[in-house]
Amino acid sequence: MSRYNEMWRSLGLDMEAHDQLLEALPPTYHDVYLTQFGRPAGMKYFDFVVNEVHGLRIQELQEHREAGGKVIGAFCVFVPEEIVRAVGGICIGLCSGIDVGAAEAEKVLPRNICPLIKSSMGFKLTKVCPYFESCDMVVGETTCDGKKKAFEILNDYIPVHVMETPQMKKGRDRELWLGEVEDFAGLLERLTGNKITAETLSRSIREVNGKRRALMRLAEIRKNNPAPISGRDSLLIAQIAMYDDVERFTAQVDKLCDELEQKVRDGDGVFPAGTKRLIVTGTPMAFPNWKVPHIIETSGAVIVAEELCTGLRYFENEVPEDAAALDSQMENVAARYLGINCAVFTPNTARIDRLVQLVEEYRADGVVNCALSFCDPYAIEANRVEQTLKKKNIPLLKIETGYDREDAGQLKTRIEAFIEMLG
Amino acid sequence: MSRYNEMWRSLGLDMEAHDQLLEALPPTYHDVYLTQFGRPAGMKYFDFVVNEVHGLRIQELQEHREAGGKVIGAFCVFVPEEIVRAVGGICIGLCSGIDVGAAEAEKVLPRNICPLIKSSMGFKLTKVCPYFESCDMVVGETTCDGKKKAFEILNDYIPVHVMETPQMKKGRDRELWLGEVEDFAGLLERLTGNKITAETLSRSIREVNGKRRALMRLAEIRKNNPAPISGRDSLLIAQIAMYDDVERFTAQVDKLCDELEQKVRDGDGVFPAGTKRLIVTGTPMAFPNWKVPHIIETSGAVIVAEELCTGLRYFENEVPEDAAALDSQMENVAARYLGINCAVFTPNTARIDRLVQLVEEYRADGVVNCALSFCDPYAIEANRVEQTLKKKNIPLLKIETGYDREDAGQLKTRIEAFIEMLG
Repeated sequence: MSRYNEMWRSLGLDMEAHDQLLEALPPTYHDVYLTQFGRPAGMKYFDFVVNEVHGLRIQELQEHREAGGKVIGAFCVFVPEEIVRAVGGICIGLCSGIDVGAAEAEKVLPRNICPLIKSSMGFKLTKVCPYFESCDMVVGETTCDGKKKAFEILNDYIPVHVMETPQMKKGRDRELWLGEVEDFAGLLERLTGNKITAETLSRSIREVNGKRRALMRLAEIRKNNPAPISGRDSLLIAQIAMYDDVERFTAQVDKLCDELEQKVRDGDGVFPAGTKRLIVTGTPMAFPNWKVPHIIETSGAVIVAEELCTGLRYFENEVPEDAAALDSQMENVAARYLGINCAVFTPNTARIDRLVQLVEEYRADGVVNCALSFCDPYAIEANRVEQTLKKKNIPLLKIETGYDREDAGQLKTRIEAFIEMLG
Repeated sequence: MSRYNEMWRSLGLDMEAHDQLLEALPPTYHDVYLTQFGRPAGMKYFDFVVNEVHGLRIQELQEHREAGGKVIGAFCVFVPEEIVRAVGGICIGLCSGIDVGAAEAEKVLPRNICPLIKSSMGFKLTKVCPYFESCDMVVGETTCDGKKKAFEILNDYIPVHVMETPQMKKGRDRELWLGEVEDFAGLLERLTGNKITAETLSRSIREVNGKRRALMRLAEIRKNNPAPISGRDSLLIAQIAMYDDVERFTAQVDKLCDELEQKVRDGDGVFPAGTKRLIVTGTPMAFPNWKVPHIIETSGAVIVAEELCTGLRYFENEVPEDAAALDSQMENVAARYLGINCAVFTPNTARIDRLVQLVEEYRADGVVNCALSFCDPYAIEANRVEQTLKKKNIPLLKIETGYDREDAGQLKTRIEAFIEMLG
């Protein structure tokens, strides 16, 4: 019996279903993570966080709430964490990367829908996610059709505030988005009773930039050959970034980077030098979706960068720290988020340009474009990726897959063939 | 050999594939349309239009172009026809409702995508649509993810201007959309060399309102019992509205209405009094998609209204005609279009409210919600429809289907059971 049982019960979790869920994670985690060769010692902290995923972190959230703080759940890297922190709140990512509650979710959603959306709805309907149950407010956005319309249904079970993300990046889109960010700030001020000031927002901007900088430092280290850390571990760290305590997390990433920089100086890697280097791009891989990276890295290649919302899109580009006035800070925050190269924008050529740049910077041998099943934005944009990479003679493998394991064998065959073809 | 062969060849059509396509239509049209009981004489005009779908109308477009006019292709009822007409242009709907060119389309698009998008792309790639090949400009919009992203690819084959439709209907969305309409007007002015004036726009507003008024008159007549016209015929008229000459079409609909009003006075109908009356709602049914209406009306029910973009959403709500200044006219046009209850908006409760109202106004016995396969906006919003109709005790059948015939038998079984259940 877990020492957190009482807490989980008080959150209203379905205890039996939740026990089953918690039993499913360790064997997968063992296979994907704990069997890796030469794993950095600094990964121990992240192993600990995963081990306590529904325990210690949830307890911290409860303590935060008991002290009067609010917890805000989000489903997208467009929700500005700086604003949440400026009212003393904690921002938590709620996207889910495991097949849970599909039967319940399919009572309110179509069968043929992106597994991330189905899973997030499933977690809420089956009451097995203590993060969901710890939220004072849930924030959606209008990025993709699936999420946008699913939030209307989710709102039957928990109040959802939806931010309107625009679909282009013209002047009038920037205005619209700034208005949405300001509305969100006002809503949080009313929810918490705390006014956002130039001081609180400035501090939040620096804190979140600190997290980004640590993650960017880790990303930079991965440019080295041999690779000092696996793609799986790097993905895990980006996933944890979305719910862990910001300052502790930042310090731990920096500590890991110190170790990795020493490994680089020692010429030490987790894969042999000369291992084929791949970049993964596409639909975000939410915790604990490690399916494709695991197949890639057990098929003879190493992932050196993730052009994903659970990767570079999350931590590239800081909010400028030099603005003193609240208005300008707010504009800087809004502008930084609108800079994210999500496939819901049209056109989204900056994503493809960045991808080409990354191939060069990270000395990658090829790219794997992973779209989640039924994810129209990334599945269709795969054509744009393909067209540009072909012109640049950069090898590309296009994958569409969900959270189930049924296609794992077939995927492995395709991925092995792709890696072999890289020569 | 058709007398239009030379014209088709000059448009660059793939003559062989086009011949095959033209051969496929008449047998289907015969089965769905020409076997109906007591069909109004006024349908002869629309039969003629269908018979000349790639002939006479295309010839008219060529004559218009030879006289210096422009042809603008659109994929959505959000593209304001008034603006196109104000520069002397002709606006043509390009959405397609038949499974054509799927193999070609799947070379650039995912397999699991809405059939309307796949078909539109297929028509372009296989060069069998003389409307596409007659366009001086194609206008897309950012309504759904699928279309939004597919336009980027379509732009490789024909220049596409994309209008940004917003995703909510707040003040800042109205501003954004007005800006988009004004940009579109500017673009058309540059394309045609014709300036939009208060006079030309005012005339266009009255012309397009005239078309709406005739269609609305037809809709009103369908409130009678027995039904004076079938749902199939009414759907066909709405589909033809999107590409036929506006003034001729309007006159023909009015003529048909005269006949139908006489039938109503005579107590005459195309189905026996007491036939179950259904409303169809959901994803637009583009020409020649008559699949579900045909099954419904050969299973013992009659369709009395279409809450569709190929139905009431297209012609409900006129643009006010009383504004004298160009600015106000432009605002009126933008506002009228933003009032359309498309499922891409969040929330979109006005659609559900209108649906409930329609059930009462048209004395309907039930509703059939038809979402095209992989159409997330309507497939997910079906849950909102279901929730409200359940509260109001209005019977609902939810369908998801594509353009193929594979599920026709299964659909017929479900539809028959639904109609029987209505008692």
